[in-house]
Amino acid sequence: MMDQPAAPRSAVYDDAGVASVSERPGFQALLANLKQTFALRAGPGRPLTDFGHFASVLDLGQPLALAISTDGIGTKAIVAQLVDRYDTVGIDCVAMNANDVICVGAEPIAMTDYLAVDVASDRLLEEIGKGLLAGARQANIAIPGGEISQIGEIIRSERKGFGFDLVGTCVGVVEREAVLNGAAIVEGDLIVGLGSSGIHSNGLSLARQVLFQQAGFKPDQYIEEFQQTVGEELLTPTAIYVQPVVQMLNERLPLKSLAHVTGDGLLNLARVASASGFVIELLPEPPAIFSLIEERGQIASEEMYRVFNMGIGFSVVVSPDGADRVKEIAEGHGFRAWTLGHCVEDTQKRVWLNPQGLVGKDGKFTAG
Amino acid sequence: MMDQPAAPRSAVYDDAGVASVSERPGFQALLANLKQTFALRAGPGRPLTDFGHFASVLDLGQPLALAISTDGIGTKAIVAQLVDRYDTVGIDCVAMNANDVICVGAEPIAMTDYLAVDVASDRLLEEIGKGLLAGARQANIAIPGGEISQIGEIIRSERKGFGFDLVGTCVGVVEREAVLNGAAIVEGDLIVGLGSSGIHSNGLSLARQVLFQQAGFKPDQYIEEFQQTVGEELLTPTAIYVQPVVQMLNERLPLKSLAHVTGDGLLNLARVASASGFVIELLPEPPAIFSLIEERGQIASEEMYRVFNMGIGFSVVVSPDGADRVKEIAEGHGFRAWTLGHCVEDTQKRVWLNPQGLVGKDGKFTAG
Repeated sequence: MMDQPAAPRSAVYDDAGVASVSERPGFQALLANLKQTFALRAGPGRPLTDFGHFASVLDLGQPLALAISTDGIGTKAIVAQLVDRYDTVGIDCVAMNANDVICVGAEPIAMTDYLAVDVASDRLLEEIGKGLLAGARQANIAIPGGEISQIGEIIRSERKGFGFDLVGTCVGVVEREAVLNGAAIVEGDLIVGLGSSGIHSNGLSLARQVLFQQAGFKPDQYIEEFQQTVGEELLTPTAIYVQPVVQMLNERLPLKSLAHVTGDGLLNLARVASASGFVIELLPEPPAIFSLIEERGQIASEEMYRVFNMGIGFSVVVSPDGADRVKEIAEGHGFRAWTLGHCVEDTQKRVWLNPQGLVGKDGKFTAG
Repeated sequence: MMDQPAAPRSAVYDDAGVASVSERPGFQALLANLKQTFALRAGPGRPLTDFGHFASVLDLGQPLALAISTDGIGTKAIVAQLVDRYDTVGIDCVAMNANDVICVGAEPIAMTDYLAVDVASDRLLEEIGKGLLAGARQANIAIPGGEISQIGEIIRSERKGFGFDLVGTCVGVVEREAVLNGAAIVEGDLIVGLGSSGIHSNGLSLARQVLFQQAGFKPDQYIEEFQQTVGEELLTPTAIYVQPVVQMLNERLPLKSLAHVTGDGLLNLARVASASGFVIELLPEPPAIFSLIEERGQIASEEMYRVFNMGIGFSVVVSPDGADRVKEIAEGHGFRAWTLGHCVEDTQKRVWLNPQGLVGKDGKFTAG
């Protein structure tokens, strides 16, 4: 999958259980089936977006359109069991979904949750509720309903009695004419990055494999640089970017595209409806968790920047005249913010990480 | 949990892994947390319904409100693996959600899906796509996006390489003034039942325990009465009631409440916002699958009617003058339909199954 480095490093991540599903023929067949459903709605429900953007947008036959996104916390549920603490993963669940919904320019309004459990432990349920509430407060959304499914035959546990999977579906509203998809990007637009809170909810399989299997750390091992244990560091909740981004939208800043930096890292910038490339000239120093993983796993930077957010959890593409205000708003909400680079015309939608000498396209980075 | 019969029979169901979560203190704590999110939205996103109805309804600040429901197919995923066939469970996934959304009087418009897999087998992905498309066609909805999560550490498999969990979130639109919740039910309103296609997606844990563990059937054993194998019978997709119900709504029939008959069987009738009781005077002969389970498992009728749909997959409460048209429309869409009984005033919201001599309230039936 990568030109450099040697195959085994790439295989580490594949072995961690999260090899790319999107390249499988079965996945393409699934998409081909679902694509046929787009024609089933002529009025309300007609999809205004194709697959592959952060959230889908549906026509409602009125000025407001509906944004919708479904995502889970993945193996962060395993980390929660290792630390035996469940009151933060609800924040991740809100974050993974609400951060996707804002990417189309929508204001998140509500989320339903799906919690599948091995057994319905009281402490698990209560703590997950606390996290969902904390996340809902940060994202300013209601959680009007959801589903708890007790399916011990389907859900494995890392800690007996506490196995679970946690998924959300977030909806938001956006004026039909104001849907953001990057179509309006022009050469010279600036890329502003917003700081992450740590590893967020992506790359945890690789992180656990490196830190616990290869390096032999214990989840409860205190790390001076983190000022907390390895497990707690990995469990740090995903930042929720709703409040600053909704403010940017409400102030009608000249935003061009918004990207939640999840799996595939800054390659997420390329999920735009225009022939744009992204030249990154500044990369902030990655938080200590990433340096530790890179060093202990001997992971190449190509892989680190593909799998992890490396300190940037969200990015905003904006006309140069709006960049200062974007940063001001982000900082006003407690986020670090950097002008990372600028946009160019590029039919291949490449992402250049100049400080690292990398260039990314089609889901991977290589030495540029 | 039940007065009659003796505890062991009830324990059968509890042991089958689906003991009621809703009675746990942790569940109540979870709800108490989520309930606090209702106040977070004053404008669009404000919940217009409380927990416990079939779908939630959200104010959008315009005439159309949004209905939303999240549900999964539960252990029907295990049945699919036993039969090694995955092209029908997508229909169940659409059914479980779209049938809930219509209960508030909404027209379903779209669903997102969440598919968690042990490993991403091509055949599994492709077949699930086929079922989702078939379900979407029946429900007339788009599936504009979704999520596939490859989490082998979380998902168990019954058949190696084919372990999965399948969940949907369906949204629909309803005029804010036309939300159905049973508040308008008056004494004398009629209850019309629509036929099920079989076991649907509820009670499969008990069904499998009785048929495979206790009675020793093999999934591929042919049963004359079913004209197919036990496994195929259990895998029969859940009926989707969207088309007839949307027609009833569009014809402005005097509907009072709609109930998707899922776990808790006809006790679902009682999920109404009025002090109404439901007197059932006619129960159709249950399909053969239920007789077989009842007989081989020696399951009491209290339990059978609580766990299974017993042949009635959906019910419609309607003014007497609308009942004939309700049945006509249902039959026009290929569903059997019966006038099952009528409504009475009852602050305890009881459900009387007169042909069985049972009375139900608070989630259980007892000899009446």
